[in-house]
Amino acid sequence: MSKYCFGVDLGGTTVKIGLFTPEGEVVEKWEIPTRTQENGSKILPDIADAILAKMQERGIAREAVIGVGIGVPGPVDDAGVIYRAVNLGWGVFNINETLGGLLGIDVKAGNDANVAALGEMWCGGGKGYKDIVLATLGTGIGGGIITNGKIVTGSKGAGGEIGHIHLVDDEPDACGCGNHGCFEQYGSATGIVRLAKRRLAASEEDSVLRTAQAEGTLSAKAVFDAVKGGDKIACEIAEEFGSYLGKGFAAIAAVVNPEVFVLGGGVSKAGEILFGYIAKNYEKYAFHACRNAVFKLATLGNDAGIYGAAKLVLG
Amino acid sequence: MSKYCFGVDLGGTTVKIGLFTPEGEVVEKWEIPTRTQENGSKILPDIADAILAKMQERGIAREAVIGVGIGVPGPVDDAGVIYRAVNLGWGVFNINETLGGLLGIDVKAGNDANVAALGEMWCGGGKGYKDIVLATLGTGIGGGIITNGKIVTGSKGAGGEIGHIHLVDDEPDACGCGNHGCFEQYGSATGIVRLAKRRLAASEEDSVLRTAQAEGTLSAKAVFDAVKGGDKIACEIAEEFGSYLGKGFAAIAAVVNPEVFVLGGGVSKAGEILFGYIAKNYEKYAFHACRNAVFKLATLGNDAGIYGAAKLVLG
Repeated sequence: MSKYCFGVDLGGTTVKIGLFTPEGEVVEKWEIPTRTQENGSKILPDIADAILAKMQERGIAREAVIGVGIGVPGPVDDAGVIYRAVNLGWGVFNINETLGGLLGIDVKAGNDANVAALGEMWCGGGKGYKDIVLATLGTGIGGGIITNGKIVTGSKGAGGEIGHIHLVDDEPDACGCGNHGCFEQYGSATGIVRLAKRRLAASEEDSVLRTAQAEGTLSAKAVFDAVKGGDKIACEIAEEFGSYLGKGFAAIAAVVNPEVFVLGGGVSKAGEILFGYIAKNYEKYAFHACRNAVFKLATLGNDAGIYGAAKLVLG
Repeated sequence: MSKYCFGVDLGGTTVKIGLFTPEGEVVEKWEIPTRTQENGSKILPDIADAILAKMQERGIAREAVIGVGIGVPGPVDDAGVIYRAVNLGWGVFNINETLGGLLGIDVKAGNDANVAALGEMWCGGGKGYKDIVLATLGTGIGGGIITNGKIVTGSKGAGGEIGHIHLVDDEPDACGCGNHGCFEQYGSATGIVRLAKRRLAASEEDSVLRTAQAEGTLSAKAVFDAVKGGDKIACEIAEEFGSYLGKGFAAIAAVVNPEVFVLGGGVSKAGEILFGYIAKNYEKYAFHACRNAVFKLATLGNDAGIYGAAKLVLG
């Protein structure tokens, strides 16, 4: 009998579901809407219905399903208890037990960012490694830490909240979390735009980025395009941006000593030129025994969550 | 048949050995010298002889020994390979295989600081927790990270090298590791003396610490004794010291989200007054989901290593 597992990535508007073989092949993937009304009480029944219908459609018996993994947008502990998921309207409850009860199948839940890291380790940019850090450089910095092949969940599911490492004293702007000076205020897509605006305001020097700013198109992409064109101010901004990323990653390395940093999110699309700025600064700030870590691109994109969720139940 | 395990703490001058029950009772502990001559080639045979002699003396059969754990002063990976141990004269080799071959018993090796953290989790200040950070505030800052009951070894055995988190830009003095601005340059016994000297040099204000400095007795203890006496400058130094410790611990928390920080080393002897300065600053810099971590004193002292080594083989 062929064996299968399901990986579920629960987002605020869409639930992605994947049917996998234990070897990491996607047999099928599809989406259903996330119905957040009535305090999100329909979400898990909808997911259970979708999975059971798929099993019936394909003639897959319960005994053939190793388990169902699910990544959710909130802190989840190792027992499957979610502590809060504001976007879903959820309070505190045990996802493994609730969804497992609806399915009659073993369920394992994890935080979505941590689960994505596991997916990248299994079949993506971190394939072949067992000590990895996934950093998703988007609006903020999402993260997931894998040591010896396992997610670092932490005591309250807040392991891998790397975007909130304190990096800078005396930052006037507040981070989304309420603190001042968090890593993601500098090392994210939002962060590089902030750095760019500050740098542009600090002098009258010419730069193609002034046009971008005037047109409202100042972005990570605009900065790195300007770097490629040799724009002096853009190079300075990229250097400063790289120094924050180097410091943040070096701090993480002194705690968990990863083999590889896997970078995803919109900012990572800048590619090699970005990696050069990061690696140079990482080497400057990292403890010597941690300097051999490499930087790689995430390759699974929006599918990292379903891959990692499936891997959760494979152990 | 009663079961036993041995825990070995290998230091540069002395090897501590403990005979344990699986429940964490010390049956006996003793020491032998560390003979570092001939590139440390006598060290493991000496340890094997000592353990085999103890088994014979007590009539303990090989089958009754679950295993021998050993903490060593250098980076060790999960397979037992040591990468360097300058103090011992050792090159790269597999400790588990070498010592295991001499004993005919399963051996598990780990880095001494990481192993001490495991010991504090098993029977010390971290008892009852499974996500802990041990920080030993001595000449430097040693560390060990335990997540979900297991040591975070890292890819090259450099997990838990928390003393080398980069905290301060533009530090003129170099850390022992060669970098500038490492956590242990501020948060250690050496660090508080540096902060005190800088603060005393920055003004002419009166302080009992000026006498201590003149007499060569400026120390963490002198600072906290002066704080208890209400010395204004000492209070400022303690506040600054606490802010570095708060920032460093908050950075670690954003990576691994521990339940408890267990503090050891000479500086920790300052006790409650120190903990107050740390906790206040930790709450300021920590991500909200990590703020519930507590601070506790390490309780095993120099025995943490043998306890943790024994626990290594108990899993």
